Amino acid sequence: MAEPKKIIIDSDPGIDDAMAIFVALQSPEVDVIGLTTIYGNVYTTLATRNALHLLEIAGRTDIPVAEGSHVTITKGTKLRIADFVHGADGLGNQNFPPSAGKPIEQSAAAFLIEQAKLYPGKVTVVALGPLTNIALAIELDPGFSKNIGQIVLLGGAFAVNGNVNPAAEANIFGDPEAADIVFTSGADILAVGINVTHQVVLTDADREKLAQSNGKFAQYLCKILEVYFSYHRDAYNTKGVYLHDPTTLLAAVNPSLITYTEGVVRVQTSGITRGLTLFYNKQKRFAEVTEWTDKPTVKVAVTVDAPAVVKLVMDRLIDS
Amino acid sequence: MAEPKKIIIDSDPGIDDAMAIFVALQSPEVDVIGLTTIYGNVYTTLATRNALHLLEIAGRTDIPVAEGSHVTITKGTKLRIADFVHGADGLGNQNFPPSAGKPIEQSAAAFLIEQAKLYPGKVTVVALGPLTNIALAIELDPGFSKNIGQIVLLGGAFAVNGNVNPAAEANIFGDPEAADIVFTSGADILAVGINVTHQVVLTDADREKLAQSNGKFAQYLCKILEVYFSYHRDAYNTKGVYLHDPTTLLAAVNPSLITYTEGVVRVQTSGITRGLTLFYNKQKRFAEVTEWTDKPTVKVAVTVDAPAVVKLVMDRLIDS
Repeated sequence: MAEPKKIIIDSDPGIDDAMAIFVALQSPEVDVIGLTTIYGNVYTTLATRNALHLLEIAGRTDIPVAEGSHVTITKGTKLRIADFVHGADGLGNQNFPPSAGKPIEQSAAAFLIEQAKLYPGKVTVVALGPLTNIALAIELDPGFSKNIGQIVLLGGAFAVNGNVNPAAEANIFGDPEAADIVFTSGADILAVGINVTHQVVLTDADREKLAQSNGKFAQYLCKILEVYFSYHRDAYNTKGVYLHDPTTLLAAVNPSLITYTEGVVRVQTSGITRGLTLFYNKQKRFAEVTEWTDKPTVKVAVTVDAPAVVKLVMDRLIDS
Repeated sequence: MAEPKKIIIDSDPGIDDAMAIFVALQSPEVDVIGLTTIYGNVYTTLATRNALHLLEIAGRTDIPVAEGSHVTITKGTKLRIADFVHGADGLGNQNFPPSAGKPIEQSAAAFLIEQAKLYPGKVTVVALGPLTNIALAIELDPGFSKNIGQIVLLGGAFAVNGNVNPAAEANIFGDPEAADIVFTSGADILAVGINVTHQVVLTDADREKLAQSNGKFAQYLCKILEVYFSYHRDAYNTKGVYLHDPTTLLAAVNPSLITYTEGVVRVQTSGITRGLTLFYNKQKRFAEVTEWTDKPTVKVAVTVDAPAVVKLVMDRLIDS
C-alpha cells in the first residue's frame, strides 16, 4: 500500500467541518499532519477552540493546531459569520467545555509554508473555509505554490446560484480577494463548488443509522447535527443536509470520486456579484485580452459519485 | 387567423441582424411597425444607415426607422464596436451605396414610448443590441414597462461563458447599466442568451442552399455572410455561424420554439465581470436580503428547437 498522503485541514468548525475532520482521521489513505483554523462558520478564536476540542474527542491531541487569520487579506472587510447555520458555538449549540489543548505558536500561514517546504510536493491542503490563510502563505513565500502538493478547496458556485446570495458561495464570499490570489497562484488546485456538494445529501434516515450505531464519532455528531438539519429545512426545504466539507475531504482522499474540468477561475471582488467565481473553459478565442488571459488553469469538480461519498462517510463514522 | 403581432426591432445591423429583419418581414405572424437603431456591431449612425438600406432592399421603405442613442445610458462609457465580427460597414464589407431613406424625427426611445401607448399591451420589442434605447424609454415614461407587450431580447450568457470575455455577452456588455434597468423594470421580458443561440448554427451547406436559391434575401445575404463565417472560424473553430438575432426574432414570432425558466436577473456593472447576467432561480431562501430580493421576475430561455429555427430561417429567406 502507498504511503498515506499528508494532509492539512484548514477549516472553521463548523458541523460539516467536524464531520470532515473525523472522516479524515478514520481514513487510512491519509495522514492528518495538522489543522489550521480560519473564520467563517465561527470567528477564528472559536474555530481554534473547536479544532482542539474535536481532536480531544478523537483522542488525537498529537495533531498540531495552528491558528489562522482573524481578518480578511484586505483588512477592514467586515467578516460574515455563518452562526445561523452551525449554531452560535459552531457545534450545534452544545456548549462543550473547552479542551485542555493549545494551538502551536506558529500562525496557520507559517505552518503551511513550513510543512510544504519540509515535504515538497507531498502535502495536500484541504481548505474548507475562506482562503485567507492559503493566500497569506502564497504572499509570504513565493515558493509555496510550487512546494504545496495540491490545494483541494471547498469553494465557488460554478454555473449555479450561490448560498450567501444568488452570486456567491460562502467560503469565497468570506474573502474574495484571497480566493482570487489562490486561484491565480499557479498551485495545483482542485475546487469543489456547491454545484457538486449539493449532490451529496445526508438524509434523516442516515442520521438515524448514525444514532443507532456505537461509533464514537457517529454518536458525537448526532448531538450536534440538529441545528444543521434545521437550517437546511428552512433555507432549502429539504429533509437532509449537504455534505460540503466531507465531500471535499474525500475528493482529496480519493480523487476518483469526482470528475473535473480544467480552466481559469477568477473571483469578482466588487459590486453585487462580489464573491462570484467565474470559470473560463478556454473554448473561445476572444478578440481582446481578458482578465483570464494567460492565467494558470485550475481543476474544477463537475460530477461526484454521491452514493459512494455518503457510504464512505457513513462507514467511517460508524466504524469508530 | 389571429391579427399579426406588432413588433419593433431594435438593432445594430449587423449581419445576423439583417437576417433577423428579413425573416421578420417574411413572417406573416408579425407586423413590423418600425425599426429602431443602436450602436453595437456598428456605431448608431451606421446602424441607422444600414437599417434604411435593408428596408430598401426589402422594398419596405414604408416602415419607419427611428434613430437610437449614440451613447450608453451612463454617458462617458467608451463604446465597444464589434466591427471585427460584421465588417467595418456592419454588412460584410460590401460598401453598399447609401439608401435614399431618412430616419423619422423621433428618437428611438420616443418612438417606442409612443407605439407602446398607442397599442397598450400589443407591441413586442425585439431587442437585438445593447439595451440603451429600451432603458431610456423606461426612464422617460413610467408607464412604458406596463404599456409594452413584451420585450424579447438577445442578451446574456446564462451559466456559460460570455462572447466578449469569459463573463459577459456582447449586448449586455455594451451597456450593463441599461441592461440592469431593463431586467428590473417589471416589464414582461424574455431574455434569449448565447447559452441558447449557440445551439442554432447555420452551416456551410445551408449557406450553399441559400446561394443556389432565387430568393432575394437569400441572394443578398450570401454576399455579406463571408465575414461572419470567417469570424466564427477564427474565434470558435467552427464551419458555421450562430444565428443569434434570427433565433431571438423567431422566439418572439413563435414562443413555442423555446422553453424558458423564470427568475430574477441582475447585471454586474463593475469589475472583471462587468456585463455578467446573474439569474436567481428563487430556490434558496437566503438569510440576508440580497440585490435580487423583491425584484420582478423575467423569463430566461433555456432550450430551443434548433432544427426548427434553422428550417424557418432557411424557408423564409429562400421564399423571397
